[in-house]
Amino acid sequence: MSSRLKDVAALAGVSTRTVSNVVSGSASVAEETRARVQAALDELGYRPNVAARNLRAGRTGLIGLAIPELYSPYFGELASLIVHAARDRSWTVVIDQTFGDPEAERRLLDGDGGRLVDGLIISPWALGPEELTDRSRDVPVVLLGERQPQGLADRVAVDNVLAAEEATAHLLASGRRRIAAIGLQPHLRNETARQRLEGYRKALRGAGLEPDAALEQPVTTLHRKDGAAAMTALLDAGARPDAVFAFTDELALGALHIAHERGMSVPEDLAVVGFDGIEDGQYANPPLTTVVPDKRQIAERALQCLADRIYSPASTVAPLDIVVPHRLDVRASSGRRTG
Amino acid sequence: MSSRLKDVAALAGVSTRTVSNVVSGSASVAEETRARVQAALDELGYRPNVAARNLRAGRTGLIGLAIPELYSPYFGELASLIVHAARDRSWTVVIDQTFGDPEAERRLLDGDGGRLVDGLIISPWALGPEELTDRSRDVPVVLLGERQPQGLADRVAVDNVLAAEEATAHLLASGRRRIAAIGLQPHLRNETARQRLEGYRKALRGAGLEPDAALEQPVTTLHRKDGAAAMTALLDAGARPDAVFAFTDELALGALHIAHERGMSVPEDLAVVGFDGIEDGQYANPPLTTVVPDKRQIAERALQCLADRIYSPASTVAPLDIVVPHRLDVRASSGRRTG
Repeated sequence: MSSRLKDVAALAGVSTRTVSNVVSGSASVAEETRARVQAALDELGYRPNVAARNLRAGRTGLIGLAIPELYSPYFGELASLIVHAARDRSWTVVIDQTFGDPEAERRLLDGDGGRLVDGLIISPWALGPEELTDRSRDVPVVLLGERQPQGLADRVAVDNVLAAEEATAHLLASGRRRIAAIGLQPHLRNETARQRLEGYRKALRGAGLEPDAALEQPVTTLHRKDGAAAMTALLDAGARPDAVFAFTDELALGALHIAHERGMSVPEDLAVVGFDGIEDGQYANPPLTTVVPDKRQIAERALQCLADRIYSPASTVAPLDIVVPHRLDVRASSGRRTG
Repeated sequence: MSSRLKDVAALAGVSTRTVSNVVSGSASVAEETRARVQAALDELGYRPNVAARNLRAGRTGLIGLAIPELYSPYFGELASLIVHAARDRSWTVVIDQTFGDPEAERRLLDGDGGRLVDGLIISPWALGPEELTDRSRDVPVVLLGERQPQGLADRVAVDNVLAAEEATAHLLASGRRRIAAIGLQPHLRNETARQRLEGYRKALRGAGLEPDAALEQPVTTLHRKDGAAAMTALLDAGARPDAVFAFTDELALGALHIAHERGMSVPEDLAVVGFDGIEDGQYANPPLTTVVPDKRQIAERALQCLADRIYSPASTVAPLDIVVPHRLDVRASSGRRTG
């Protein structure tokens, strides 16, 4: 191991003692030096004896991941990436599904009587940011998705307004005018859905169209069955959409299913665009156009935030608002209108 | 709480002291009595103070769930059910993805230096049952899926041979004769795939057909992309299948995708049947026929096995081999041949 420390020290241009201080989480290293050493550690793939380090520091080596639902393909893919990346840092991930149950979110923070996790990554549904980031808990928290203007904790997300605006603009550019939005959850504090609706409306107004309430279809949850129910409701109400922007791919796939059942051609009669970039969409018939968040970067940046808070608690950096990239993958479900 | 104990005692026909002994995991209660009390506890939804009980017994209240991949819809749905059912028992689930990495499976058993979990549910890919159930670890293990004739640990699974035989017989009954099997993994110790191949061949032979090696298409992993690659390989090799039995729904959906791309009608030109009963299949175009394991029962029975081993370690019941029910959901992807 000492030769490895030497390699890291040489690359970072510091003494092995400084490397050792960084690895042991000592607060005596200047932030700039620490960052340089960390970069060298990362580059050389150095894996310190984390168990020993945790023991000394009173840590468990566990980080919590609280997601609303594990059986959603989006959260499944994201959790998979987070577990994978956490392993590189010798962390074990404790995953919990919250189902919008505040008690579940609290339990992950508290463990059974004692503190269970060293840090928590949470996609909140139930607890507000105030409770999640209560400083008396002393557990660093990273929020996924939700914007929280108070800046109470680090946050990692795509620009949902911009992404939704681009998806809707893509449909407008292909000649669609009656674009339905499926995915609002008025019964929940779902900030993500609110932002996607905002982007959708912005694009419509940018094209000189006034948003039509009859085309904005709410849902209960974000799965295929909800997309199917929303599409059925739109068609039965005579809303005559020529396109659908669904706030998740699962909703989009449910809408696509109903379009087929009703004998509509996709994309000729109805263009469909989803959000999340789940693998399923590539194999839909036709393949689904979707907004793809960079999930690998969401996982990596969230873990980096946690590591910084856990191992450099002395640093008083203000909560970060990290925006990760997204792209629009255009596939056959939203081809140009030929009719 | 005492009135609750009294209710349980009355229902089970024992003293409150006996209920208390069962709840505290004392070994002094006869197995038959313990089972009766447990049934009463379950029926009345009694939730004991597990934190205190764990503390006294040197337990962590954590159980491990080791699955190959979290982003597979089947394992996502199963993990979701297990996490949900574990909460009813006041257990927190630590999920790890093994990706066929033996180190990951060992780590879950061992924690970081100390024992992390009170018990482990594992769908093994990497470690053999001998290592998983090494008694020196003293952690009860429940195996999902893999048959292990030595009877080293409790095991919960569907009858894969029978289920595959039924799925293939269904295709034969609809007039198919060149039924491809997609899903063998010759590079892995995947016992489940081997059993499904056995059932497939058994059905063919039962119909007087000799299995054709050209129709048995191996795969690398069990996802849509592998199903698509396998279907492409079958068609390009001129195997002329009139049906596909895929060992997972994801493989089936990948095969379905290629059939569409090649202009084949489903089910007219090609019938497709999958395995797993994932939600995605219901919304495929056409909806996918599939073997549906009773996942809720897999989750419940696996947790019950763990609870029995953890709270009644003195009981010397031999390892159980629990077979949970399955059914074949026939949908449009395998309709009767009309041509």
